[in-house]
Amino acid sequence: MKALVYHGPGRRSWEDVPDPSVAEPSDAVVRVDAVTICGTDLHILKGDVPEVKPGRVLGHEAVGTVTATGDGVSTLKAGDRVLVSCISACGRCRYCRTGSYGQCLGGGGWILGHLVDGTQAEYVRVPFADTSLHRLPESVSDEAALMLADILPTAYEVGVLNGRVRPGGTVVVVGAGPIGLAVVMTARLFTPGHIVAVDLAPARLEAARRLGADVLVGPGDDAAAAVAALTDGLGADVAVEAVGVPETFELCARLVRPGGHVANVGVHGAPATLHLEQLWIRNVTITTGLVDTFSTPDLLAMVAAGRLDPGAFVTHRFALDAPDGMDAAYATFADPLATGALKVVLSRATA
Amino acid sequence: MKALVYHGPGRRSWEDVPDPSVAEPSDAVVRVDAVTICGTDLHILKGDVPEVKPGRVLGHEAVGTVTATGDGVSTLKAGDRVLVSCISACGRCRYCRTGSYGQCLGGGGWILGHLVDGTQAEYVRVPFADTSLHRLPESVSDEAALMLADILPTAYEVGVLNGRVRPGGTVVVVGAGPIGLAVVMTARLFTPGHIVAVDLAPARLEAARRLGADVLVGPGDDAAAAVAALTDGLGADVAVEAVGVPETFELCARLVRPGGHVANVGVHGAPATLHLEQLWIRNVTITTGLVDTFSTPDLLAMVAAGRLDPGAFVTHRFALDAPDGMDAAYATFADPLATGALKVVLSRATA
Repeated sequence: MKALVYHGPGRRSWEDVPDPSVAEPSDAVVRVDAVTICGTDLHILKGDVPEVKPGRVLGHEAVGTVTATGDGVSTLKAGDRVLVSCISACGRCRYCRTGSYGQCLGGGGWILGHLVDGTQAEYVRVPFADTSLHRLPESVSDEAALMLADILPTAYEVGVLNGRVRPGGTVVVVGAGPIGLAVVMTARLFTPGHIVAVDLAPARLEAARRLGADVLVGPGDDAAAAVAALTDGLGADVAVEAVGVPETFELCARLVRPGGHVANVGVHGAPATLHLEQLWIRNVTITTGLVDTFSTPDLLAMVAAGRLDPGAFVTHRFALDAPDGMDAAYATFADPLATGALKVVLSRATA
Repeated sequence: MKALVYHGPGRRSWEDVPDPSVAEPSDAVVRVDAVTICGTDLHILKGDVPEVKPGRVLGHEAVGTVTATGDGVSTLKAGDRVLVSCISACGRCRYCRTGSYGQCLGGGGWILGHLVDGTQAEYVRVPFADTSLHRLPESVSDEAALMLADILPTAYEVGVLNGRVRPGGTVVVVGAGPIGLAVVMTARLFTPGHIVAVDLAPARLEAARRLGADVLVGPGDDAAAAVAALTDGLGADVAVEAVGVPETFELCARLVRPGGHVANVGVHGAPATLHLEQLWIRNVTITTGLVDTFSTPDLLAMVAAGRLDPGAFVTHRFALDAPDGMDAAYATFADPLATGALKVVLSRATA
């Protein structure tokens, strides 16, 4: 089969690799019908994630069709249409047994396209299939489902739920890339009073407005003044960090009111300064987190019921089975300011 | 009357000042029967709290007897024995109406011995008396009640409740001064599996052991190894910072397991480094807070019922009405390594 192989920092190729097969009784093999690229894949290609070794097939998001299952798989069979989640779960360890699948101690967690071969390929082996794949209702399209492999549950669990977004509150989202926009979309489930989006790119702010942000803070605007104007000068109830650099984290800590929540969603590569000399007295809660995907069934049900339309994130489409599809998708996704890309989707044209 | 007056960094005196009187309809005047000194008072005397101006009477903890009330006070009368809490509450602002009295926007919060004259005196004017004083049951001694003016609710709310201490969990308390020891005492209300106390002073560790810590980490001991040995290498469920310097906060962030809580109780004067490049993926929750004292009625009920014995913190006693009582108490409290002081109490010998 063809797959996108990482060959060390800055080097990837869409090349022939052996077809995957069932290796453990709990495995399934899934034919990839639709796959996307994550900002984390770009981090890997920069060499920021050294656990990813050359030779690894990248990708941790897909929708596909089960083609084979191991003897231990009991809830899935060949032909089932499934969501391949970014988080695999052994289902048996201390963390999995409390729903903290992202912290799985039994060999799961974020492994696809990280510690084992991933989804940017024609087929993928999925460990712990019974507890890592989600069967898809017919009414949910491939594209909508694909957004539930990572960005929707990440934004919802790590941003909205950790941040305790509540009706009437003021939420500020710093960073309006795909994850920040997914925070805007899922924050609305709790009917906050205001959603403030902060970004440097006017096109992304416009996307935030379409998804439900009512106050936009662009380059040259004063985020603190915008938040103060909405909150009697107190600050935001919730500030969500969706960029991953120290400056935006520190901005969130300044924007939040006494008693408020800072929810970090961004993937960071450097420490930030925590101004405890100001914060110790302010009753602030700061959370970090890798997604657990415990919310994926709820999110799927909301998509099926028409309460969420995550297909809105898909801006560019490519053919998975075209020779240059993957390269073109990476080029488009890696330059969002020029292309306007939010999420790109590669789909198989022929079953 | 006599009172302890702050005269700028390093300078205090027990001197004659005018008797306080009712200035606002919501005021009460309280005769101080027992008063203590807080580590925060030492910070003020070092000049660390510049909002405290020369001429201010210090102190934010007392037990006393109401001698006068303003026309607006409806639940207290002269003769009532009361706890003077470190937090005053207007009872009417947005924060007070959600129980966040420490963040009061109506002129309360931590004001006594800070923004208005405090309790280290023979009498004190208490604003917002109906919502800031607590009537005391006869069965609760002055000394036990006095520990509920600040250290017990601070330790319980900002350490134990914010940290989500739960049955069976492993709690590490960094710093075994009066606040850290009060964390040990109130953590036991939730029956954790282990309480690890970390301090440099053997006498404080011994006090932690008496109050319920089962693992002690002293100078030269490896806190991370001690916690790892109790938790299959995972780390503590809860780490409580009860010192107030960057190093101990950063130690807490290292000691906590994925999915755990760091509860900051310490009063900080400098920023700390937050290692987001490690923490972003670990589902850690960090909380800060000034006490609200919403738990004071519960704590008083537990003392009255014999479930808490906060009198155990009192190591040294002085006469409030002796000319040198306050100076001796400060000298003893300011040098705990030499004196073994935890909390010192000054009591009025004659009613």
